[in-house]
Amino acid sequence: MKFTRFSLGAAVWALLSTAAAASPRQDAVRAHRVAHEQELIAEFREFVSIPNVDADQPNIRRNAEFLLAMMKRRGLAAELLEGKTSATNPAVFAEVKVPGATRTVVFYAHYDGQPVNPKDWAEGLDPWQPVFLTAPLVRGGKIVTEWKPGDAINPAWRINGRASADDKDGVFAILNGYDALVKTGGRPTVNVKFLFEGEEEKGSTHLGEIMELHRAKLQSDLWIICDGARHVSGRKLVIFGVRGDVNMQLTAYGAKRPLHSGNMGNFAPNPAMRLVSLISSMKDDNGRVLIKGFYDDYVQFSESERIAIKEASFTDAALLQELGLKEPEVPGRSLLEGFELPTLNINGIAAANIGKTATNIIPAVARATLDLRVVLGIDWQKQVQRVKEHMTAQGWHVIDHEPTDAERAEFVKLIKVEVDTGYNAQRTPLSLPVAQAVIAAVQSTTSEPVMKIPTNGGSLPLAVIQEVLGANVITVPVANYDNNQHAENENMRVDYLWDSMETYAALMTMP
Amino acid sequence: MKFTRFSLGAAVWALLSTAAAASPRQDAVRAHRVAHEQELIAEFREFVSIPNVDADQPNIRRNAEFLLAMMKRRGLAAELLEGKTSATNPAVFAEVKVPGATRTVVFYAHYDGQPVNPKDWAEGLDPWQPVFLTAPLVRGGKIVTEWKPGDAINPAWRINGRASADDKDGVFAILNGYDALVKTGGRPTVNVKFLFEGEEEKGSTHLGEIMELHRAKLQSDLWIICDGARHVSGRKLVIFGVRGDVNMQLTAYGAKRPLHSGNMGNFAPNPAMRLVSLISSMKDDNGRVLIKGFYDDYVQFSESERIAIKEASFTDAALLQELGLKEPEVPGRSLLEGFELPTLNINGIAAANIGKTATNIIPAVARATLDLRVVLGIDWQKQVQRVKEHMTAQGWHVIDHEPTDAERAEFVKLIKVEVDTGYNAQRTPLSLPVAQAVIAAVQSTTSEPVMKIPTNGGSLPLAVIQEVLGANVITVPVANYDNNQHAENENMRVDYLWDSMETYAALMTMP
Repeated sequence: MKFTRFSLGAAVWALLSTAAAASPRQDAVRAHRVAHEQELIAEFREFVSIPNVDADQPNIRRNAEFLLAMMKRRGLAAELLEGKTSATNPAVFAEVKVPGATRTVVFYAHYDGQPVNPKDWAEGLDPWQPVFLTAPLVRGGKIVTEWKPGDAINPAWRINGRASADDKDGVFAILNGYDALVKTGGRPTVNVKFLFEGEEEKGSTHLGEIMELHRAKLQSDLWIICDGARHVSGRKLVIFGVRGDVNMQLTAYGAKRPLHSGNMGNFAPNPAMRLVSLISSMKDDNGRVLIKGFYDDYVQFSESERIAIKEASFTDAALLQELGLKEPEVPGRSLLEGFELPTLNINGIAAANIGKTATNIIPAVARATLDLRVVLGIDWQKQVQRVKEHMTAQGWHVIDHEPTDAERAEFVKLIKVEVDTGYNAQRTPLSLPVAQAVIAAVQSTTSEPVMKIPTNGGSLPLAVIQEVLGANVITVPVANYDNNQHAENENMRVDYLWDSMETYAALMTMP
Repeated sequence: MKFTRFSLGAAVWALLSTAAAASPRQDAVRAHRVAHEQELIAEFREFVSIPNVDADQPNIRRNAEFLLAMMKRRGLAAELLEGKTSATNPAVFAEVKVPGATRTVVFYAHYDGQPVNPKDWAEGLDPWQPVFLTAPLVRGGKIVTEWKPGDAINPAWRINGRASADDKDGVFAILNGYDALVKTGGRPTVNVKFLFEGEEEKGSTHLGEIMELHRAKLQSDLWIICDGARHVSGRKLVIFGVRGDVNMQLTAYGAKRPLHSGNMGNFAPNPAMRLVSLISSMKDDNGRVLIKGFYDDYVQFSESERIAIKEASFTDAALLQELGLKEPEVPGRSLLEGFELPTLNINGIAAANIGKTATNIIPAVARATLDLRVVLGIDWQKQVQRVKEHMTAQGWHVIDHEPTDAERAEFVKLIKVEVDTGYNAQRTPLSLPVAQAVIAAVQSTTSEPVMKIPTNGGSLPLAVIQEVLGANVITVPVANYDNNQHAENENMRVDYLWDSMETYAALMTMP
């Protein structure tokens, strides 16, 4: 049975969306999990407790070694896939060949995590010492202080810790979904390849290199990415694309040193004021980016993608309420509709001190980190160039180093721009048979309709997979949407962890 | 001899500006200092080493007690002037009555210091452990590691530490100028009152209260304030006014928690972007504040004030070069001309993290601290109100507390505004006889022309002195202009400390 993009009629959509009763296979996976909750949680907490910031290579190695051991405990012949030099954090790999299988699927997650500023975390919470929370802190959650290993684990609790939801939960889903499947007498319908990357959070700098070096091992038809969050309603999602991403670090310069704001006020320019003015010129109050060419080249959603989005947007009002927002950035535009477009976002901004530690000075420098998400059709390097050209048009002299005295004497407005490695967006058409098989597998594990998202708002370096291996890419996330991913107090719901095993066991037995 | 504002002719100015040879009195004060440098420095370093942030009341008391002891060692019957409650940091007071004196002069400095963020200080420097530097750090200065008490003290060195230049140097100048005068057989020509305040850096919240409670003790014709810095050229200054000041703490709200910038990008508003847009709307790129009424009511400089400013502005070009700036905020406007006008300055701004600790989030809040300097004629409370009205006109709902859920549901743009206590500006006319006497006294200690500044750019709560006591106020600063006052690595030149004794001995013997 073959679908094309155009033959996919309403009847088929209806069929695929039908709620399915739990299968015997799902029941078996669940029973296996119930019998092993203590070991599963113990191993997960130990895993989360290993710091995994990309730059911390000794601990990155500890994570990789821990992963190797996890996989060997599950009977997998796991190995490290190294890059060309020790600058590359290793990926961890294993494969299971299935006689008669026609598809080869790479199940991917990443074991590295976002940088951490521990002082931002709530009192009693340590990014690397996972504890249970009764609920999110912003909704009155407390640390569970009484629990000890062996005690019952409330499925409504959350496990707190860096990477608990982004993305060590993905490793949990894939390895434990597989393990429960085979331990209960099942077997995959596809050749299964496991791949756990160690530098996703710094932009998967060497994923292309690893694919080139280990091309035969990673040869595949499809990658299933376990990363990101389920829908705000709790429904399961299948995501067919991601945005690309790049960060820019800006440093605007004033005088060589901080100055008394009275003695020099109205004389020495304030770099914070000028940076504020520059950033403000980039975006209007209606959420529209004003940088020339920013929206050129982007590929609009197809009609079927728009339909899927409409189906999935019913919870925006509840989301706004939960976030404490009266209206979205662009009133009338839904969350998913906004994913069609590139973004310009301030990750952070800083100059001198504020509040109780503020002093009456004119700061010497002002800094900001910008985050540019790009969508299909927009090249991230071109997008960065457009931002730089905007700065020039606003009268700034753009440099890539601390200004010299000669530059200070020559230019009124000096800004240092540092650009991290970026990557482009990726989208897999909903109409492909393999896309439909993935939807069907996920649908078999839930009585709620599975939501189909043409592209996620977030970013993963997936374009490179299609470019190097020719494999399609589809994402099936398992985390709770309110996990504080990328921020302080990151947390993963226990019931979602449990459920993730069923989802991934089903994916490994996809039709 | 009486001067009026209008009778002060060019010949008199020329006379007053004439370089004077060192007087026998000045020579005696200098010789006394040379003989006592070790004790003077030892006492000063001990004084600077006592933390003096306003909120740290136990240490504020330690400072006051230390001051009492310093004064008693100089034969002064010193006492604490307390406020109504223990919330008031005490002032330290003493007086010396001089038979036949016609003027009573309060010599004022403050012993509290600006808040400190120790992590901003350079490696090896501690705000409360004064050490010598060979030069400012930005010009390659190093910590003097070899020196020990008893070793010669290079007058080109600087003493590093919070309040070394703002304003414990003022205490040094006044007490040691007096002490050297009387120990070398001199005596003041005016009744001398010593007053050292303990909460200037938080806006002299209770100075009015102390003046009311101790009105008889503080009765006076003139206050001479020892605070601030000499001219960038090194010349001595007499300053006849100050700007007023008030701070505003702004907190702009986005969603209740930080959000993944991909998952919520183009949907959840970014409070940093909105705060940036708001602040940017307050000031144009030509340095002009756009808030309605911001420049209403200000009193323009008189002709003689403009002349004095023109004489004093010759070093702007060198100052710009030293600061690493191509041009001032408003090209063509001199430093001192800018002091005629109120300011709107960003002291600091912050949202989430930047640089290496940045993460791809939409921050939940963005904060900024604004500093508003006001000039003669502008009421600080009205000025704050104008800023708030501007926010409202820009579509913000201004609150003074964390937003409630109801407020979040009702208003698109929410901002919390917290306003510290402020105060108004003060100016003493240059033409008064007492003003001329002060200029003559300072001129007697230097061969360079003394510069006359109609108003300083900085702020002190001097308006209240005129209001409560009817006394004129004139400032004679002694610090180096590049002292990093209010910022990290604050430092005071040793030769300026030495010189300050001669200046203040001369002021106490003014004609």
